Amino acid sequence: MLEQLKRDVLRANRELVTNGLVIFTWGNVSAIDRASGLIVIKPSGMDYDVMTEEDMVVVNLDGEVVEGNRKPSVDLYTHIELYKSFDKIGAVVHTHSTFATAYAQAGKPIEPYGTTHADYFYGAIPCARALTKKEVDGEYERNTGKVIVKTFAKLDYNAIPAALVDKHGVFAWGVNAHKAVYNATVVEQCAKMAYLSRGINPDLSPVSQYLLDRHYLRKHGKNATYGQGEDK
Amino acid sequence: MLEQLKRDVLRANRELVTNGLVIFTWGNVSAIDRASGLIVIKPSGMDYDVMTEEDMVVVNLDGEVVEGNRKPSVDLYTHIELYKSFDKIGAVVHTHSTFATAYAQAGKPIEPYGTTHADYFYGAIPCARALTKKEVDGEYERNTGKVIVKTFAKLDYNAIPAALVDKHGVFAWGVNAHKAVYNATVVEQCAKMAYLSRGINPDLSPVSQYLLDRHYLRKHGKNATYGQGEDK
Amino acid sequence: MLEQLKRDVLRANRELVTNGLVIFTWGNVSAIDRASGLIVIKPSGMDYDVMTEEDMVVVNLDGEVVEGNRKPSVDLYTHIELYKSFDKIGAVVHTHSTFATAYAQAGKPIEPYGTTHADYFYGAIPCARALTKKEVDGEYERNTGKVIVKTFAKLDYNAIPAALVDKHGVFAWGVNAHKAVYNATVVEQCAKMAYLSRGINPDLSPVSQYLLDRHYLRKHGKNATYGQGEDK
Amino acid sequence: MLEQLKRDVLRANRELVTNGLVIFTWGNVSAIDRASGLIVIKPSGMDYDVMTEEDMVVVNLDGEVVEGNRKPSVDLYTHIELYKSFDKIGAVVHTHSTFATAYAQAGKPIEPYGTTHADYFYGAIPCARALTKKEVDGEYERNTGKVIVKTFAKLDYNAIPAALVDKHGVFAWGVNAHKAVYNATVVEQCAKMAYLSRGINPDLSPVSQYLLDRHYLRKHGKNATYGQGEDK
Repeated sequence: MLEQLKRDVLRANRELVTNGLVIFTWGNVSAIDRASGLIVIKPSGMDYDVMTEEDMVVVNLDGEVVEGNRKPSVDLYTHIELYKSFDKIGAVVHTHSTFATAYAQAGKPIEPYGTTHADYFYGAIPCARALTKKEVDGEYERNTGKVIVKTFAKLDYNAIPAALVDKHGVFAWGVNAHKAVYNATVVEQCAKMAYLSRGINPDLSPVSQYLLDRHYLRKHGKNATYGQGEDK
Repeated sequence: MLEQLKRDVLRANRELVTNGLVIFTWGNVSAIDRASGLIVIKPSGMDYDVMTEEDMVVVNLDGEVVEGNRKPSVDLYTHIELYKSFDKIGAVVHTHSTFATAYAQAGKPIEPYGTTHADYFYGAIPCARALTKKEVDGEYERNTGKVIVKTFAKLDYNAIPAALVDKHGVFAWGVNAHKAVYNATVVEQCAKMAYLSRGINPDLSPVSQYLLDRHYLRKHGKNATYGQGEDK
Repeated sequence: MLEQLKRDVLRANRELVTNGLVIFTWGNVSAIDRASGLIVIKPSGMDYDVMTEEDMVVVNLDGEVVEGNRKPSVDLYTHIELYKSFDKIGAVVHTHSTFATAYAQAGKPIEPYGTTHADYFYGAIPCARALTKKEVDGEYERNTGKVIVKTFAKLDYNAIPAALVDKHGVFAWGVNAHKAVYNATVVEQCAKMAYLSRGINPDLSPVSQYLLDRHYLRKHGKNATYGQGEDK
Repeated sequence: MLEQLKRDVLRANRELVTNGLVIFTWGNVSAIDRASGLIVIKPSGMDYDVMTEEDMVVVNLDGEVVEGNRKPSVDLYTHIELYKSFDKIGAVVHTHSTFATAYAQAGKPIEPYGTTHADYFYGAIPCARALTKKEVDGEYERNTGKVIVKTFAKLDYNAIPAALVDKHGVFAWGVNAHKAVYNATVVEQCAKMAYLSRGINPDLSPVSQYLLDRHYLRKHGKNATYGQGEDK
């Protein structure tokens, strides 16, 4: 079942390596088939280069394995919470990419310091609040998803398709697995350039609202002018 | 038409990847045929590895597509403004290369801290002033070109073949597409070394005028002694 | 003798290069056969790509060569001290990997600033005290092992499988050669992210004890939920 | 003539690229045949991957071309001054490698902060004083060599086989071309780790004299214990 989605998820997991976002098994991608409510996710702790389509695990929104012989990623319930609350997303990515994770470890958002950021994220990439002891000791992975969702109470998850988790790493999402990995890659590059920009000028301010508007809307929405029109 | 120029522009766009200046589609190269006033430019939003010569877009100095089935880069009008004002240049490059863009995001020029810089740039690589809201809301890409041109009111664009755009990235140029990408690559390396040099010694001063003269003139102009004499 | 162990040690030495931990000959891996008390170790100063299984040196716990035509790594006696005191480990790795060595040169431990660290190290990766002149002038390599062992007087070497040596570099260990190199790789990545995190927020605090517990125990021990169950 | 030396010099020039020390044509290697007093040096401004043995230029200690159709590197006279004063060296390398050049641009020596440095350099890698206007306007390249030589008035060029040139870059040397490039590679790695170490602990002090002694002498001199004995 969901053979195409398995291929997409496998390929996207491998893009994590190609794009320099993970070492070892330190990241995972899932995608959802909204019609059936089924999720395809990376198996836990498997190397990207030995995984095949058959290793992809199919689960439902309750986290029950519907198909596959592998255990799903331990981060499954974080993915599930995001799918349940962000109903327009088709895929979720988790990474510990270097600069973005450094921001997460520092407990700081990635501010929009330039148009590279503005091209993809319509504002700062937020850092979710730290989980309480109770949240960590309880359903930890599910609660991780819940604090991300709470972080977006007043933010548009479509316009800011990523969040940092305090002391942890990055979650990003998108309409499909490839786009979600793309967004996670942009997060890392923006984090790196934000880090360096602050090193050059510790007092720098974020990009102006009008420049943020111009760049974000040049690439997104019905008046977008970027690209060949194939995938706005 | 302009088949050789298309090949040059395609190859130069791919050099952006080889030289580590771009990820995804985050950069573009164009070149101009001064005889006809026609420009060959990268299509908007296309991956470098799937592009062919046929995807290159031929436009005139009014921005009208003369040949090609693709939409030109959204940055076309910035390129056009540079061609119109800098009449000795044959090619323009735009990148978001990491360290140089960090300087742009910080709103700071790249100072000439050593002879690596002096070998290619006869002074600081300036950072153009921020565009006003009116300039951004209006013909944004054209106005980006105009503020670069204004930045060079008292500078020699041949001797300093690049500029930073505030909160944005790098534009560089040269006599042909390959040389323009070369210059953009030097900008990135100089930015990285400037960043590190200031980390080691925050109070360092730029290279002396006489050392700047010596290195720049050793590589450029009629008394240059560097190279095998083939392409001064 | 110990042909499989030689293959493992050779492969693990090459992983040092693949994982970006060493240049030239700047690292070494050994493994021990606990039944016989014999150690297989990299020969001194040989390039990783020219070494073969035959070049691996077999020594006993007194440091005497039992088989092989090569001289063992100069760091042999450090490895031996670790094998003698840490009786559950099966392999030892030494590297001068960039960020971790920078921490060693700075004489500072690598604090656990996030869950990446907590997934593999149950607390800070300690930096052993500087050796005295007497210790350096005497049996230097053996004394290096001894100060590492002393550093773990009140620490669990199984739960924190690595240490920094002041002004020197990294020693890491594990149940086998591959796992030891894995741990050395994690040390480097955690060091890099710790460095960057402190650059973003100089006042950041380590991960909470409950989050450290949660992540470490999710991957280790009898209640671990990560992976496919094959190698806890 | 000197065919083997040409092969060595060609190979060593290419190692500059392999070892990540140069981009474009930004580095050069020469070697000397002490019996004849002839030097083989990289041609000026040629790409490393198109150069062949025939492009290597043979010059004498007066800088006169004895064989070859190419112009020698513009840095030839710096090399010559080093050969004339450092009579035990067999090869010279010049690079603008990133971190080492950042130290040169900052006008600071690379202090020995650990044993990686001590394994190859018996003390700080000095930064030569800035050249005066007269020295730059005159025989610039020759004067660059002369200030390096003056820097070693009270230092042993065999024990510290490299120097930084203020606002410029790195010169390193060795008994042959391969060893000279090796040393230049160590300079870059030590510069990078020194930079990071100071970022972690701005007040760190250099390695103790006794640890410096121990490591340097473990690898060099008649009592060296490192390696297989083939090339001390």
